[in-house]
Amino acid sequence: MVKSDVKVLGAWPSPFVMRARIALNIKSVDYEFLEETLGSKSELLLKSNPIHKKIPVLIHQDKPVCESLIIVHYVDEVWSSGPSILPSDPYDRAIARFWAAYLDEKWFPSMRGMASAQGEEAKKAAVDQFVEGLNLMEDAYVKLSKGKPFFGGDKIGYLDIAFGCFLAWLRVTEKTSGMKFLDEARTPHLAKWAVSFCADPAVKDVMPETEKLAEFAKLLAKFKPAPPK
Amino acid sequence: MVKSDVKVLGAWPSPFVMRARIALNIKSVDYEFLEETLGSKSELLLKSNPIHKKIPVLIHQDKPVCESLIIVHYVDEVWSSGPSILPSDPYDRAIARFWAAYLDEKWFPSMRGMASAQGEEAKKAAVDQFVEGLNLMEDAYVKLSKGKPFFGGDKIGYLDIAFGCFLAWLRVTEKTSGMKFLDEARTPHLAKWAVSFCADPAVKDVMPETEKLAEFAKLLAKFKPAPPK
Repeated sequence: MVKSDVKVLGAWPSPFVMRARIALNIKSVDYEFLEETLGSKSELLLKSNPIHKKIPVLIHQDKPVCESLIIVHYVDEVWSSGPSILPSDPYDRAIARFWAAYLDEKWFPSMRGMASAQGEEAKKAAVDQFVEGLNLMEDAYVKLSKGKPFFGGDKIGYLDIAFGCFLAWLRVTEKTSGMKFLDEARTPHLAKWAVSFCADPAVKDVMPETEKLAEFAKLLAKFKPAPPK
Repeated sequence: MVKSDVKVLGAWPSPFVMRARIALNIKSVDYEFLEETLGSKSELLLKSNPIHKKIPVLIHQDKPVCESLIIVHYVDEVWSSGPSILPSDPYDRAIARFWAAYLDEKWFPSMRGMASAQGEEAKKAAVDQFVEGLNLMEDAYVKLSKGKPFFGGDKIGYLDIAFGCFLAWLRVTEKTSGMKFLDEARTPHLAKWAVSFCADPAVKDVMPETEKLAEFAKLLAKFKPAPPK
């Protein structure tokens, strides 16, 4: 049996791991998916990402690449066996990178902020902040997609991956909060984009089902690591 | 008079602004430097970076690019009038991006953490964390420079810019804390690298003098924005 020279250290519920997998799928690269167990870290993970000790790690020809957006860049630059992921124009690339960084630094933390906010007032402020971010992304989509189905145009690209990886967690957040965020009324363009994104051949097999992810979220909420011995 | 089609919105003490300026200097690109005033934000800044309202912003042909490392990428991709800033090999690029992200997300915050820590124990912990990061960078330098003067090899590159922009603030931190961080004994390679970096033609005119920056740091510590009217 041929040992794959591409491995992904990850876990199915992680949106960041999904980014690496979607990028590899776009390039039709076969890879071995090495699933980490919740609450423990494999020797290979600790060796491959000693600084952050976090998934995902892409291992290519025994060399590790860490951090999900850096992995997506790497995959795009190494494999030409599929469409380009980053836009071809430098300015468009800068804009895609800008919004991807915004999602990781501001928007995704604001999604987590809704779950952790204590008290009515704090909860309302957290929801407002999150919705404001979604509205920004709706505007960005209209501007960048120029009437095409994806942020990246006719095919899913860098910003589609950076944003789309959060969709399953967004559905779980809607389910647990009883609120609707990505819908026809509030964000009509993103609602449509989300359907196209989840149906994409590079995405559909790695996008978790909402029910299954909601079960995992319950487990995660209960999970407390054992105290150090 | 010909109006420059390249502008940088910035301020001389900002390490992040320095990144944009060094990148432009490497490519021998003339630009207009528009200095923001401490405590206020120009109309042009608010219009150019409505999301973060932060410097630096590079304006090229009236189009804004925000976020310092994204600007460095953009400059490298648009201008071929100087050496490449990012490494040419995709794996080397991934590693340079990894450490640049580490500096912004972990190491620089740990430098600020030393100043804000309250109490002896917290201060010691903050210093330990900061020094641990410096040691990591010393090791990374030895590994990546392969005996050449810079992280990027013979010439300053992406990671040199990402790290070197903090050198003046590091000197100020040494001065105010009475501790020595980047020295022959602790980090011999980085100490030598820092001298080469600061002497580089692309760097030396934008690197603040330690004395002047220390004065600015005192001003900054006293500075309180006026309450909103």
